[in-house]
Amino acid sequence: MAKEFVKDVTGMDEDFAQWYTDVVKKAELVDYSSVRGSMIIRPYGYAIWENIKEALDAKIKETGHENVYMPLFIPESLLQREKDHIEGFAPEVAWVTHGGEEELAERLCVRPTSEVLFGEHYKNIIHSYRDLPKLYNQWANVVRWEKTTRPFLRTLEFLWQEGHTCHETDEDAHEETVRMLEVYAELCEELLAIPVVKGQKTEKEKFAGAKYTYTIESLMHDGKALQSGTSHHLGDGFAKAFGIQFTDREGKLQHVQQTSWGLTTRIIGAMIMVHGDDRGLVVPPRMAPTQLMIVPIAQHKEGVLDFAYDLKEKLSAVARVGIDASDKKPGWKFNEYEMKGIPLRLEVGPRDIENGQVILARRDTGEKVTVPVSELEAKVPIMLEEIQKNLLEKARAHREEMTSVAPTFDEFKSVMSEKGGFVKAMWCGELACEDKIKEETGATSRCMPFEQEQLADTCVCCGKAAEKMVYWAKAY
Amino acid sequence: MAKEFVKDVTGMDEDFAQWYTDVVKKAELVDYSSVRGSMIIRPYGYAIWENIKEALDAKIKETGHENVYMPLFIPESLLQREKDHIEGFAPEVAWVTHGGEEELAERLCVRPTSEVLFGEHYKNIIHSYRDLPKLYNQWANVVRWEKTTRPFLRTLEFLWQEGHTCHETDEDAHEETVRMLEVYAELCEELLAIPVVKGQKTEKEKFAGAKYTYTIESLMHDGKALQSGTSHHLGDGFAKAFGIQFTDREGKLQHVQQTSWGLTTRIIGAMIMVHGDDRGLVVPPRMAPTQLMIVPIAQHKEGVLDFAYDLKEKLSAVARVGIDASDKKPGWKFNEYEMKGIPLRLEVGPRDIENGQVILARRDTGEKVTVPVSELEAKVPIMLEEIQKNLLEKARAHREEMTSVAPTFDEFKSVMSEKGGFVKAMWCGELACEDKIKEETGATSRCMPFEQEQLADTCVCCGKAAEKMVYWAKAY
Repeated sequence: MAKEFVKDVTGMDEDFAQWYTDVVKKAELVDYSSVRGSMIIRPYGYAIWENIKEALDAKIKETGHENVYMPLFIPESLLQREKDHIEGFAPEVAWVTHGGEEELAERLCVRPTSEVLFGEHYKNIIHSYRDLPKLYNQWANVVRWEKTTRPFLRTLEFLWQEGHTCHETDEDAHEETVRMLEVYAELCEELLAIPVVKGQKTEKEKFAGAKYTYTIESLMHDGKALQSGTSHHLGDGFAKAFGIQFTDREGKLQHVQQTSWGLTTRIIGAMIMVHGDDRGLVVPPRMAPTQLMIVPIAQHKEGVLDFAYDLKEKLSAVARVGIDASDKKPGWKFNEYEMKGIPLRLEVGPRDIENGQVILARRDTGEKVTVPVSELEAKVPIMLEEIQKNLLEKARAHREEMTSVAPTFDEFKSVMSEKGGFVKAMWCGELACEDKIKEETGATSRCMPFEQEQLADTCVCCGKAAEKMVYWAKAY
Repeated sequence: MAKEFVKDVTGMDEDFAQWYTDVVKKAELVDYSSVRGSMIIRPYGYAIWENIKEALDAKIKETGHENVYMPLFIPESLLQREKDHIEGFAPEVAWVTHGGEEELAERLCVRPTSEVLFGEHYKNIIHSYRDLPKLYNQWANVVRWEKTTRPFLRTLEFLWQEGHTCHETDEDAHEETVRMLEVYAELCEELLAIPVVKGQKTEKEKFAGAKYTYTIESLMHDGKALQSGTSHHLGDGFAKAFGIQFTDREGKLQHVQQTSWGLTTRIIGAMIMVHGDDRGLVVPPRMAPTQLMIVPIAQHKEGVLDFAYDLKEKLSAVARVGIDASDKKPGWKFNEYEMKGIPLRLEVGPRDIENGQVILARRDTGEKVTVPVSELEAKVPIMLEEIQKNLLEKARAHREEMTSVAPTFDEFKSVMSEKGGFVKAMWCGELACEDKIKEETGATSRCMPFEQEQLADTCVCCGKAAEKMVYWAKAY
């Protein structure tokens, strides 16, 4: 029975896409609904999102931001105010044309992002430099009409936070753009154990309407990259389109400088694809809804359940602890909690109780250790931190292994077709080369990393003078 | 200047509707947008919602529920599955007809509530009595195409939580319906200081598709009632429409018994209209984002600001404390924080510092007391609790004063036209009388309270045998 449970999941090196689909379903993160491309986030998936949200919300507030809530709908005329923006988003928005029985005079789109709504509001509430900076954030659902969808990674509707800020100067907005990218990088590395490359998007890949876009890029188990969070310096484009002006310290009327930045439920997809293995999910302890699961052995024997519940109570002071006292077989429970990626499993049976010890099994390494009951409260938090650290190190090692340098276009092509992963290569800065690289290798420019290396003097594609070192990869 | 600030607000007894509109705007709870009927919830309004949400979410989890997230869109055919439900909601939903450039084969409605989505999901995941109860909740935005709208009270889009549960028996579902109404009543009375009447809705007023609906009803300053939270026993209507069946303990196939329950951003409107006064908002301390605001006096004088910041740091251990060290005049600040309803104001100037004391001003009573600095940490929490208690008592007294008994229809009509408020009167149970009462008095049945009183033996309207004592009122 236990074996069958695991057998339902395709091997990750056999068919990674199928492995992913199997795991999100079997670990009970999501379910499908009759709404094409939309997912149901089940209790376990949502509890992970709540942990991410709580941690990120605290960081957003610590950096001086306030939460607000904007309308779901955007009138078509408002969306059209900023030209690049509407061009970028029009092909992928959902349109509301009827309210009740009536046809609307003007169509409303379901927000794909809220720059224009914030723009309109900021025009109303900003008048003087004393009103700046305005540092707002919102937690919301947004809709983008995607053709091909996959749970967490690309869905018609997703959950996210979107920050929208206004500043006096270009420099202030720049600092904010950097600050929030740092916040995202910290969240990924410290809490989700996902190492990221920080850098700037090319003109082609930047946000529609932005001056420039900063991004964090992470690498999945299969060697494909995932954009994990973006932070945009919007310049004064939206400010001009919406007339967001303020009287500056010299009494002159100026347009504000803006930023926006967002992180989505997509990050759960990254967590799955960075840490998961053939037995299912592996959730980093700091974000795990349940960090330790107690599985009583021979629980029908006198004293076992009482002992297990006592342990649960005691350990709840140092970790988020669950207990499974259902009548399923222990082996079945082991598989279930491995599938769900719970960091530690505690096994305790009659003989353990006699000996004053229990067994702790690590999800990440499979290692089992016998621990005296008296040491548990000290040992559990240490082991959880070890797991957290190990996951980050493992992911970092995997990324290093999957990062190549391509001095020539031929090598670029062969790495991409044989191995995948990140390719570091020099680029001239021309769109033509970026397009050609994509066409011939399948890789897109992920970012121009902040930490530049002068690998060569010429563009890997056209041989002209190189401007930037770029991370390239096939991407989700 | 200070006076003008207050003058912008219409007197509440002069024009209550205008007072409300002025206060939500001046206290910076909301702003309007170009989306008809939708509001922008500003930082102060959203911080209040976050406090309500956090408190309610904790209660929902304590009672064993788990959070999930369902799609925003509902295919038309899915909405039509339960007949009463679609009839109730079809006239007020927004329809998405286009995705990107394409017309959809089937229209999608933007969820007005999510019974049908939960129904479809429950059919997939419930098979045996071992899968029950299923106790799910979601925090989400919903849309209802209202013609006349007012911030918080009635908006095209609003925020809420909606609980959806499945049970083995009718009795289990009944207990859940009661339990969650209790949770709402506790939230209102203990945290928002809003007294409520608990009872059952009439057939006419119950939720579309429910077996019966329980409600909490509160009374606003102007004598109109506000439905503040509802809890529905859905019976097996949705279960039959969606085929949600389980094998019971005897091995027989049965339909589940369901409940649903919701509380919305509307409750902020109740808070405003129950506690507010001519100087603006009054926020109950337990839900106040800032419980105490420090206003330094003559802050340019040496030592004043340092002293004020020290106080802020010290008092932050016992309350949520803000400080306004801007260069606005103190009188202006006083008015601003009175408008925002901050429970306590702390004034501290050079002479106070010399005397080792400060002034505390209560928002609810206007009372000012001088308190030695050494006693502040003990005194502030006590005063906050006194304010909380006083607000509930004041609201309760107002409700008592505005609750009348109507032995005859003539008295019913005259109370309604002269005084308003709740009218308690006997009712035969017939829709005809309910309709007639509404037509002739403007009052609707608010609820048949759980605490019934036998005021008379006959219906106040038709004179036939009375079945129930009903609370009637004009309502928001």
